Amino acid sequence: MERHQLWGGRFQVAPNAALVELNESLSVDFRLWPYDIRSAKAWVAAIAQAGVLDAAEESRLSKGLDRVATRLERGDGDNATDEDVHTLVERLLYEEVGDVAGKLNTGRSRNDQVTTDLRLWCLDAIAAVDSELQALGNALVSQASSGVDTVMPGYTHGQRAQPVTWAYVMLAHAWPLARDRGRLADAADRLAESPLGLAALAGSGIAVDREQIARELGLKRLSQNGLDATGARDFVAELLFVLGIVATHVSRLAGELFTYASAEYGFVRLSEAYCTGSSLLPQKRNPDVLELARAKASRILGDLAGMLSLERGLPAGYNKDLQEDKSLLFDAVDTTLLTLPAIRGAIEEMKPVADRMEMALDHTMLATDLADQLVAGGVTFREAHGLVGNLVRVAESLSVPLTDIPAETASTIHPEFPTLIGSLGTWRDSIERRSTMGGASKQSVERQIELLTQQFAADPT
Amino acid sequence: MERHQLWGGRFQVAPNAALVELNESLSVDFRLWPYDIRSAKAWVAAIAQAGVLDAAEESRLSKGLDRVATRLERGDGDNATDEDVHTLVERLLYEEVGDVAGKLNTGRSRNDQVTTDLRLWCLDAIAAVDSELQALGNALVSQASSGVDTVMPGYTHGQRAQPVTWAYVMLAHAWPLARDRGRLADAADRLAESPLGLAALAGSGIAVDREQIARELGLKRLSQNGLDATGARDFVAELLFVLGIVATHVSRLAGELFTYASAEYGFVRLSEAYCTGSSLLPQKRNPDVLELARAKASRILGDLAGMLSLERGLPAGYNKDLQEDKSLLFDAVDTTLLTLPAIRGAIEEMKPVADRMEMALDHTMLATDLADQLVAGGVTFREAHGLVGNLVRVAESLSVPLTDIPAETASTIHPEFPTLIGSLGTWRDSIERRSTMGGASKQSVERQIELLTQQFAADPT
Amino acid sequence: MERHQLWGGRFQVAPNAALVELNESLSVDFRLWPYDIRSAKAWVAAIAQAGVLDAAEESRLSKGLDRVATRLERGDGDNATDEDVHTLVERLLYEEVGDVAGKLNTGRSRNDQVTTDLRLWCLDAIAAVDSELQALGNALVSQASSGVDTVMPGYTHGQRAQPVTWAYVMLAHAWPLARDRGRLADAADRLAESPLGLAALAGSGIAVDREQIARELGLKRLSQNGLDATGARDFVAELLFVLGIVATHVSRLAGELFTYASAEYGFVRLSEAYCTGSSLLPQKRNPDVLELARAKASRILGDLAGMLSLERGLPAGYNKDLQEDKSLLFDAVDTTLLTLPAIRGAIEEMKPVADRMEMALDHTMLATDLADQLVAGGVTFREAHGLVGNLVRVAESLSVPLTDIPAETASTIHPEFPTLIGSLGTWRDSIERRSTMGGASKQSVERQIELLTQQFAADPT
Amino acid sequence: MERHQLWGGRFQVAPNAALVELNESLSVDFRLWPYDIRSAKAWVAAIAQAGVLDAAEESRLSKGLDRVATRLERGDGDNATDEDVHTLVERLLYEEVGDVAGKLNTGRSRNDQVTTDLRLWCLDAIAAVDSELQALGNALVSQASSGVDTVMPGYTHGQRAQPVTWAYVMLAHAWPLARDRGRLADAADRLAESPLGLAALAGSGIAVDREQIARELGLKRLSQNGLDATGARDFVAELLFVLGIVATHVSRLAGELFTYASAEYGFVRLSEAYCTGSSLLPQKRNPDVLELARAKASRILGDLAGMLSLERGLPAGYNKDLQEDKSLLFDAVDTTLLTLPAIRGAIEEMKPVADRMEMALDHTMLATDLADQLVAGGVTFREAHGLVGNLVRVAESLSVPLTDIPAETASTIHPEFPTLIGSLGTWRDSIERRSTMGGASKQSVERQIELLTQQFAADPT
Repeated sequence: MERHQLWGGRFQVAPNAALVELNESLSVDFRLWPYDIRSAKAWVAAIAQAGVLDAAEESRLSKGLDRVATRLERGDGDNATDEDVHTLVERLLYEEVGDVAGKLNTGRSRNDQVTTDLRLWCLDAIAAVDSELQALGNALVSQASSGVDTVMPGYTHGQRAQPVTWAYVMLAHAWPLARDRGRLADAADRLAESPLGLAALAGSGIAVDREQIARELGLKRLSQNGLDATGARDFVAELLFVLGIVATHVSRLAGELFTYASAEYGFVRLSEAYCTGSSLLPQKRNPDVLELARAKASRILGDLAGMLSLERGLPAGYNKDLQEDKSLLFDAVDTTLLTLPAIRGAIEEMKPVADRMEMALDHTMLATDLADQLVAGGVTFREAHGLVGNLVRVAESLSVPLTDIPAETASTIHPEFPTLIGSLGTWRDSIERRSTMGGASKQSVERQIELLTQQFAADPT
Repeated sequence: MERHQLWGGRFQVAPNAALVELNESLSVDFRLWPYDIRSAKAWVAAIAQAGVLDAAEESRLSKGLDRVATRLERGDGDNATDEDVHTLVERLLYEEVGDVAGKLNTGRSRNDQVTTDLRLWCLDAIAAVDSELQALGNALVSQASSGVDTVMPGYTHGQRAQPVTWAYVMLAHAWPLARDRGRLADAADRLAESPLGLAALAGSGIAVDREQIARELGLKRLSQNGLDATGARDFVAELLFVLGIVATHVSRLAGELFTYASAEYGFVRLSEAYCTGSSLLPQKRNPDVLELARAKASRILGDLAGMLSLERGLPAGYNKDLQEDKSLLFDAVDTTLLTLPAIRGAIEEMKPVADRMEMALDHTMLATDLADQLVAGGVTFREAHGLVGNLVRVAESLSVPLTDIPAETASTIHPEFPTLIGSLGTWRDSIERRSTMGGASKQSVERQIELLTQQFAADPT
Repeated sequence: MERHQLWGGRFQVAPNAALVELNESLSVDFRLWPYDIRSAKAWVAAIAQAGVLDAAEESRLSKGLDRVATRLERGDGDNATDEDVHTLVERLLYEEVGDVAGKLNTGRSRNDQVTTDLRLWCLDAIAAVDSELQALGNALVSQASSGVDTVMPGYTHGQRAQPVTWAYVMLAHAWPLARDRGRLADAADRLAESPLGLAALAGSGIAVDREQIARELGLKRLSQNGLDATGARDFVAELLFVLGIVATHVSRLAGELFTYASAEYGFVRLSEAYCTGSSLLPQKRNPDVLELARAKASRILGDLAGMLSLERGLPAGYNKDLQEDKSLLFDAVDTTLLTLPAIRGAIEEMKPVADRMEMALDHTMLATDLADQLVAGGVTFREAHGLVGNLVRVAESLSVPLTDIPAETASTIHPEFPTLIGSLGTWRDSIERRSTMGGASKQSVERQIELLTQQFAADPT
Repeated sequence: MERHQLWGGRFQVAPNAALVELNESLSVDFRLWPYDIRSAKAWVAAIAQAGVLDAAEESRLSKGLDRVATRLERGDGDNATDEDVHTLVERLLYEEVGDVAGKLNTGRSRNDQVTTDLRLWCLDAIAAVDSELQALGNALVSQASSGVDTVMPGYTHGQRAQPVTWAYVMLAHAWPLARDRGRLADAADRLAESPLGLAALAGSGIAVDREQIARELGLKRLSQNGLDATGARDFVAELLFVLGIVATHVSRLAGELFTYASAEYGFVRLSEAYCTGSSLLPQKRNPDVLELARAKASRILGDLAGMLSLERGLPAGYNKDLQEDKSLLFDAVDTTLLTLPAIRGAIEEMKPVADRMEMALDHTMLATDLADQLVAGGVTFREAHGLVGNLVRVAESLSVPLTDIPAETASTIHPEFPTLIGSLGTWRDSIERRSTMGGASKQSVERQIELLTQQFAADPT
């Protein structure tokens, strides 16, 4: 029996095996089948309304497509070797309804078909990623909620900077996810266009009602130019970018926790359920979830770079180069949906180690407090900064903590220092002196928790 | 005289020359000075209101900053060797107002300062790019308007596919720019946050009114977490992505025109004002503007890949790695603002060559029309596709155009063919048979021109 | 039954399902099994020699590994769900030989194991790619050999520049492949190191003879530092780069042929066996092989960018991030081995269309010949260039070919022009005037064919 | 006065300002001038030998080029606005020698000229980078030499794994640089080709002796095909890759030291000369050199990705897109030459803190020693691994170090444990038990120091 193909009448020679292998996309695009069925059913309705099908034909095709869906769901396409998912669906439809299947693609091309299918797929993928972002955001907010009173060093440049709380650090990783949900929503809105009915490049020979098709597919707008619509992949690039920035944010979270999970910091203890061991070293308990989450950003960066490079210099309209878009996109979405649940689980079960965090606070971290107090006494900030710097240097040369520097020595740098040092108070006092909205103070942290709780409860806007 | 620095009291040793060279950013960030002055003035007002400055000090600092701006405008900073733009501004302020300058940065850090400055800079950069996109969009629409009746081949896979018009092709390149304006607007909205007052990481020791600062700077929202805000660069990555996709769209336009400008196509003639010659071959008239516009997408892709890679694995909060963001961003914005006016000018002055376009239409491009007409006669589309394919094959083997195939031969393939071939009509007839909205028909093209004229007239939303 | 694992004694909790899914690498690294068996057998010999195994144990393990190989070859591992290929092999070995299997990995870690396996795999992959490069090179040389007398325009900037031959163009795409073979050979040489015996990071507790292991595995050198060797992936990055540049060269070849395969150029006719059709347009015969070959460079660029980003900032020694290397590398190698045979086949069966090539030659392409002849008469080249430029401009304004410009007009520009124009001769004469080695002359082309025939006959050096 | 141009006779219209700005490359390629002079002098000799110049003309041109060099050296070209460096040099030559300057470029094109100049530039750039790699390698070996007896934890997955020495860690970062020197040498060898005499694409109209030119320029081989040679930029991509992998290795070194420089690890103390302070926090002493060195790998990754993307799909021969190569390459070389001296200086002056390193060793790091000793007593390794894992778990649940677990408890897991634990010995004993070549033992480290001392003393091969 001859291989079912959507083309071939003008060919005298069958495709070479090496081309068949290079050209086939079913191994990649098979997962589009539910969307291919959905768009096919919308198309059947549209060409019936346009008079191409009579009621009986419409019904046979539509029911046939449902049966094809049932068969694909139960695995009938799993070892198929068709050229692509569209060929597979048409072939199975022939098996179900016979020759009338040949009417399905009247006035339709794979060019408008594939970009419609892919847009529908993207909308579901975005919903799935968004839902995982919500869950991860909630996990971070939950860690924050129980860490409002856990003081720890805040770092810049990898060096202790000022005291903050565990809550504040967790929230610092939740806010980027809130922004990313906005990016996903923007991408979803922009790609919810219906190209169906634009055919290969110039519009369809069948006068279908494109608005009606769009409504049926749940898409918001019509693509307005067939050459543009069949060749455009900016929606793929945009989604890849958003996944890239999501992965970057996750890698930053993972990178920070990786440091905190070291024996030297000891700030967090991961659940064993998110660690693995070593094949050689019996004692090892490795934070693989963090390392892998950190790594995935690179992979998605590669997918994005590949995609942008792919489109460079191509004319409008469909060129086969664009077939590569799906490997890149599916890899990035799969990677995201593999990573987010794992990192979320790790965060849900992770235990902060409050005493290690507190032990890591040292008194040079109050240097800015001292400078601020000199300022309150009328010294300019730049001068105060220098004076406290001197104090730090002297403490270092004496090998004593900043707060243990002898009063007589401190007062040679500035007469107020002994008094000011005496009144520095607790770590919490220091934190509360950073009172601006968005800072590390308790009030600010509690407000952030409230805002983000709402953010991650809500559906995307 | 000692070099002015924003730090150093705790140091006993001056920085090594190799570090100074690696570390300095003034050669890159100098262009931020107007924004650094703006944010400094907002800060002066804020700390005055918070009681750090009395009215006289506020006035001296504010006027001093104005004088610094005047000096920088007239070139006083052009050969400066300060560490960065913030140091330069503070040093000049000392020169203008003396020691009170040391109060400027009370409760402020370069960490919140630089991200504020950069966000303000981005908003202006986005406005400039958007305005160039409008202009380029208008140039394309204008070409389209005068090309509504210029028929030409539409291509897919680099092969003649169906007849379309020059207008339709130009519009296919205008629509992506409309989407990109939406992306720019989304990016602008998202980045219009005010981090000022979050200081180094944990909030400021001075209880400034951050809402008031944001209003003064024209920013829409407050950044809500200091660790996040000082370390976040997703706004840079997002803008780089949007510039990357803009550049990709421009490269596609340029790539298509490059093909059309060849002697073999001969579809367009560029103005000499946008061509250059060869140093060796006297006859050459090279479409450099198209080649360079095609190339620039690669450079911006590199900037984006660099930026995403840069952030990977970094903890929240400021790390010096982030200093690299500006070289990448400025390169991409400069490249965009260099490329868009040149390609726009080339399009404004480019002449389509209607007779070469028409000569390139050949009758196999009517194959789909024939198939559609068989369908109208009751043949299924898939069968019709095969029959017309056979007809094409036979025409090829006879070395005659599809429309010149002898009637007796054609009718052996399908009895209707001779009649159908006879009624194919003009190229315009064929185009009008693609009647769906968004297709190549005159009505669709005119509607697109109307929609895009509005789009490119309007301010960004 | 409990899942076989290479670790776990110190764990109280089983890994979470989300981690298992994120962490598993068998779906990617399964293909390493033949190399894992090879390195395991070398290890068995080494630890036997070191006294860890007695002769009977050595024999049981070695034969057991052979039986594992046989089982894997016949598909026993196809649906396995082990953590990775190393776990799979050890598990099957337990099934084959019982508890003595537990001695296999004495003093060995997955860290030295996986990089050994991967290096062995790379050597085979390089040999396969090299062999395909030879074949593609030979196909190009073969096209060149039959196109020595086929004249055609040579292009720069997409514009006709000077006459050349089809042979010369084909050879221009063969030389880069010769350089790429050198790059592959360099990469192969550099990566042929044996890390086995370096264990997890610090060397093995068993005093194996690493030189002997290297000899057994056919590797040239020992890795000299365990922390470096277990964490180094520069060999992967280097191979990805070489594949990236190979793919870039192939994309340039494909891009050029894509242009030549257009109806407007018509310089080559692809075999139908390397084309596909359209689902909608019955006449289409699309050069998919060229489009896909052009596209693949982007994908490999993405793999390379991902790999370099992955390693950034990681300490020496093994980090789990590195597990991502294999997806990227395998994708690039698979892509290369899918693309090269297809493009080679297309080139072997492609027909140049000599008359279309010759028709595309126009007389302005002789402008440089005219300038050179003015130079021979004593005019400086820069002046001659300007004079011929004027001549071209006048011809254009008269709408005549350069060679049909009236003598009286030509002589007003330079008195020698009418005579010089008269003596321009044939296209071949013009080509032969470019007589330098490496130019388009027949002698140069024949010499290139000879050199490249040797190059692509030889084994890599 | 008219602007000097290398073309223009056939043009009626001057280039538009926007094109001039987009097209100019002098701001980028100015630095090529010494190489442009060198290749010009070689060309003058070659065309004199070919009879185009008489002896007097040759002498005037050659001396004129020397005077142009002198002028450029003293800054005469610093504010020039020529199109590119080649135009600048020709213009100045006209100023020096008058109309005979018009003979310089007889038979030569900017296409062969620029790739010749760039290859010569690359050879010098490679020598400079190689010399910096030697210096950095020596700095690492020197740190290693004084750290042979400094024990510290070796890490995998960011977790303590086995004891090693500071020397071993430093050497782990030196070996990759040795490989990179090999890569640089391979790249240098491959690019040392002479394209001069291949003109625009098809060879020169002047029968110059290309072998003689190559000898004069110190290049090893002739480029063998003009279309290939003028359009090939794989040598640029290869150098960018090598710089990318160098930067990646440096980023790994910097990333590891950044961790060790934290207060929590405290393993190294950077010299203040390689740190900077904070504008707000007086106590900060930030390891900027490490952060910047870590970051630069991203930038060069971007340059490489841009370059590969740039070449994708371009035909052989020169296309203006290729002009972008130099911005990318120069950025990468400049970045490398800025970073290497700074990181080297930091390493030369960095102090390891032996007591902090030793304090970080904990007894679970001897788990593998215990397992190895069980193996020596006949237990299979896999079983021993499990038993020691149990021991670790019990120690953890008792909150005691592995070595303090009560004998009665230990012996319930395995009867030998109490004895084995008692005989574990010192950290150095443990290190020496890893006795394979390339491991952490003293003998292995000393041999590495010897090998690398030779490596970094030698010139590149």
